Amino acid sequence: MSTLFVRTLREDPADAEVASHKLLVRGGYIRRVAPGIYTWLPLGLEVLRKVEQVVREEMNAAGAQEVHFPALLPREPYEATGRWSEYGPTLFKLKDRKDADYLLAPTHEEMFTLLVKDLYSSYKDLPTTLYQIQTKYRDEARPRAGVIRGREFVMKDAYSFDIDDAGLDASYLIMRDAYQKIFNRLGLPFVICAAMSGAMGGSRSEEFLFPCDIGEDTFVRSAGGYTANTEAVTTLPLPEHDYSDAPAPEVVNTPDATTIDTLVEVSNALRPREDRPWRANDTLKNVVVVATQPDGTRELLVIGLPGDRDVDMKRVEASLAPAEVEMATPEDLKDFPELVPGYIGPEVIGPQSGRRTGDDADVLRYLLDPHVARGSRWITGANHANKHVFNLIYGRDFEADGTIEAAEVRAGDEAPDGSGPLEIARGIEIGHIFQLGRKYAKALDLTVLDQNGKSQVVTMGSYGIGVTRVLAALAEYNCDDKGLVWPASLAPASVQILATGKGEELFETAERVGQALEEAGVTVLFDDRRRVSAGVKFADYELLGVPYGIVVGRGLKEGLVELRNRRTGESEEVPVGEVIERFQEFMAR
Amino acid sequence: MSTLFVRTLREDPADAEVASHKLLVRGGYIRRVAPGIYTWLPLGLEVLRKVEQVVREEMNAAGAQEVHFPALLPREPYEATGRWSEYGPTLFKLKDRKDADYLLAPTHEEMFTLLVKDLYSSYKDLPTTLYQIQTKYRDEARPRAGVIRGREFVMKDAYSFDIDDAGLDASYLIMRDAYQKIFNRLGLPFVICAAMSGAMGGSRSEEFLFPCDIGEDTFVRSAGGYTANTEAVTTLPLPEHDYSDAPAPEVVNTPDATTIDTLVEVSNALRPREDRPWRANDTLKNVVVVATQPDGTRELLVIGLPGDRDVDMKRVEASLAPAEVEMATPEDLKDFPELVPGYIGPEVIGPQSGRRTGDDADVLRYLLDPHVARGSRWITGANHANKHVFNLIYGRDFEADGTIEAAEVRAGDEAPDGSGPLEIARGIEIGHIFQLGRKYAKALDLTVLDQNGKSQVVTMGSYGIGVTRVLAALAEYNCDDKGLVWPASLAPASVQILATGKGEELFETAERVGQALEEAGVTVLFDDRRRVSAGVKFADYELLGVPYGIVVGRGLKEGLVELRNRRTGESEEVPVGEVIERFQEFMAR
Repeated sequence: MSTLFVRTLREDPADAEVASHKLLVRGGYIRRVAPGIYTWLPLGLEVLRKVEQVVREEMNAAGAQEVHFPALLPREPYEATGRWSEYGPTLFKLKDRKDADYLLAPTHEEMFTLLVKDLYSSYKDLPTTLYQIQTKYRDEARPRAGVIRGREFVMKDAYSFDIDDAGLDASYLIMRDAYQKIFNRLGLPFVICAAMSGAMGGSRSEEFLFPCDIGEDTFVRSAGGYTANTEAVTTLPLPEHDYSDAPAPEVVNTPDATTIDTLVEVSNALRPREDRPWRANDTLKNVVVVATQPDGTRELLVIGLPGDRDVDMKRVEASLAPAEVEMATPEDLKDFPELVPGYIGPEVIGPQSGRRTGDDADVLRYLLDPHVARGSRWITGANHANKHVFNLIYGRDFEADGTIEAAEVRAGDEAPDGSGPLEIARGIEIGHIFQLGRKYAKALDLTVLDQNGKSQVVTMGSYGIGVTRVLAALAEYNCDDKGLVWPASLAPASVQILATGKGEELFETAERVGQALEEAGVTVLFDDRRRVSAGVKFADYELLGVPYGIVVGRGLKEGLVELRNRRTGESEEVPVGEVIERFQEFMAR
Repeated sequence: MSTLFVRTLREDPADAEVASHKLLVRGGYIRRVAPGIYTWLPLGLEVLRKVEQVVREEMNAAGAQEVHFPALLPREPYEATGRWSEYGPTLFKLKDRKDADYLLAPTHEEMFTLLVKDLYSSYKDLPTTLYQIQTKYRDEARPRAGVIRGREFVMKDAYSFDIDDAGLDASYLIMRDAYQKIFNRLGLPFVICAAMSGAMGGSRSEEFLFPCDIGEDTFVRSAGGYTANTEAVTTLPLPEHDYSDAPAPEVVNTPDATTIDTLVEVSNALRPREDRPWRANDTLKNVVVVATQPDGTRELLVIGLPGDRDVDMKRVEASLAPAEVEMATPEDLKDFPELVPGYIGPEVIGPQSGRRTGDDADVLRYLLDPHVARGSRWITGANHANKHVFNLIYGRDFEADGTIEAAEVRAGDEAPDGSGPLEIARGIEIGHIFQLGRKYAKALDLTVLDQNGKSQVVTMGSYGIGVTRVLAALAEYNCDDKGLVWPASLAPASVQILATGKGEELFETAERVGQALEEAGVTVLFDDRRRVSAGVKFADYELLGVPYGIVVGRGLKEGLVELRNRRTGESEEVPVGEVIERFQEFMAR
């Protein structure tokens, strides 16, 4: 400790909100260089390398082969797949001295595809899975929480290559299994959630989330075992209602009904329902959004959903990927005078819209959330200020252009697989596996000859682990109010020896104990600092998170040293002469 | 080999000129992505990691501590030291989404300095040496020879921090010693050459060069042990000549004397010298160059040197660093009508120039190469077309503003330390150690309190090894006309087993031999390919460079397998039942 390049801090860094960020900075594991860009100090680098090694060993055990791509890449392959523009401002772009376009790779689908195309040509070469543990760059709009969401970070990205869909399924399951082994070995709890594949393209997609209140991802789970990212939750199809007895639509003056609550109140007062009171989920809310494609094309859409639910823009965006989606502004609405804000009803939009026969650019598509059942009966806007229409039936009085998962998911909603009500939790995404399919292979012309000598487009999977983020998740999981508490296999050392006291003999004894332990194969961090108080040494030991401590201090007069377990707080005094074997027993408990 | 991600090529890649580049590509170790930007395939990555590990172990053994900096860095620290602009077009620059300036680090002096400033504050914290093994970026004008001069490459960069010059000397020697251990362990021959520190600033500087005809660096060595990069060769001071008997200067018409050779001829004809014929080294050549500082400031300089030597622009540039130097063009000369191209003489330049009293910007400095001795007697330009002046004496008839190492170094020149005549050779720079001094610490305000509580600027050393380049140098050194021949400690495997023949039994035997060797701790690459000829397997074995081969082929009928040493070509048939012990004996020879 007297020469180790580390300085601990007693105060939390001003920009840190989450425990892992605070403790990794305070413990001298990382230092911030710029937003989302960090330096790894010796202790941090040691832990990072151990996490990497676990990932590497399990990838190798699963038959994947390690390669290493550059981070600085030419534009052309990303242009060919459309990602040069689709990635938007998150892609770091630059020019070289000859004015050629380059990027700092956010992921390497294109490069892996081209490399396999370069080396392989036959179905006999497949399946193959390649991976790398490499530095990635993403110009995140909001880097946060230390290395949880950084702009330069270490990622393990793997890609599988198969001749057919069955092969892809098998490769996918091998990686899925390897991921479970990795997170189990790291001792990090995880849930596997159905996910949307987003801008990456492809079909089957699952996220590995570390459940944790400070996580950015929201997911659901049912007692019966359903788990999904909220973006990926699908709504159980509702049975069609029988509307044969429903009354005819009626436009009603509804002054002051400017919110869902007041509308329900006014409705029950003016037109009480025959069977039961009107409720918020009898009102149909129509929300106008703007979807902007990566090429800049903008489309206005109207989304209809029950009035008791909010629109979840992340779910809408996942449904419309790769478009970015925002609420429409009054400016956006100026070409659509028939849309009366607050009173928009289906009769002027979608299939009902007179615009259908006109210029396509003017068509307003109308999409319904699946909570709107066919045959259901609604109170909704009548397209005039202060007027609502009652008893409008979906399927009798209006149609839609399609459905969209748009409504917020709520605790208590039914899981789509019938496995019971959902609970909602937060988590940190630590891994993501995708069935990419043939998107990249098609764009970059990766084909192989099949058994009949026919050219076949290869199908791919993509498998990522955010290695730096996993380290942060481990810190988040392995800490208490005093500091970090690393698992033995990941800690920067197995034991910290604290020489707390004065006198040459005490320091010599402590050093001798350390050397004996190192000879026994235990890695030791020796706090040999001379003019540092016992209190500071204890505080540093607790902050750094080495799993065991040996205190060589006051007890030494009676020939005793103290063993400590950082995680459990257990301690035990043992004779200094027996310290090696007693410590090994202590660790084995 | 049937599943390993490798494909060997029989033909040299079109863009490859040197053996290492050809063989690393042909052997499936690397693949080009863009100029100077390469992907590492499994075999290449394996060797690269082994080289890194040797470097890491020796750095750790020398007491250096490993950290890891980002490659993507903000502009400010590099602005503070001037390198944001000094580095010129070799620096990759980019902007983030908020329009802030970033760079891809070519080296990390600034960041190490700021990190030590962040953590340390007292002389008691020093000395310390930190290092990283990390990816660097330089937008080289001419990337070449595969990974020998790349634009993205792995570098080990280390920095020492000391309170005083004696400390820096000690830290420098520790690193110098570690470098010798590293290159000795890697088995790579090297010479340590005195070097110029160039754009890095600082004083003492030495390069580690791997002597090799395809190297970009030229260096000299004497039988007595002097070695230096040609840029750093100093010229022995010449004794002052006694000019008391020299005749007075005389301007002579010298028509047709437009070259040094014709001038010597004409001189001997028109004004024969009293003691011996005139020679080329009696003529004084005055060359006008333009030095451009990083901030764009341009200065015209005249350099005088004996007519028998050419100007070595790299030596001039090293003397005038960080300026870039070019020959002056007629356009540059238009403000100096007194300079008559081909007939420039000292009488109108430097201290003799009438301009000295005028506007400073118009002053032409005159620098003499040290081959021009004080008191020496010259034929030189008379500042009129077709006229030369004879018997012009340096110190009597003209003075200079200073000296500059400008003349080419020649084989046979005396070493400046008197250790004998120089020979000239080429090499690849594989390491470079510098005494940076206080340049970066001053610019970034890195101070510590000394024993008296007084603030002291820290003094630094900088120590680099181009890890990817070292791998290429190793390939260059360890190859023959058939392929690579790795040393055992760096090879991707210790032995390649070639199953050359048909029949299940033969392949099973080969596999059993491989498993037994792996159990004995030998790493094995098994060529288990079924429809591949023995010829192709032998050629691949010779190309890949695994140091030993075991051929399980025709001899198996008699119960024999063949052991091969790739480097020596030795081979031996041994009974298959004894293969493990016989192979271990074979390796031990």
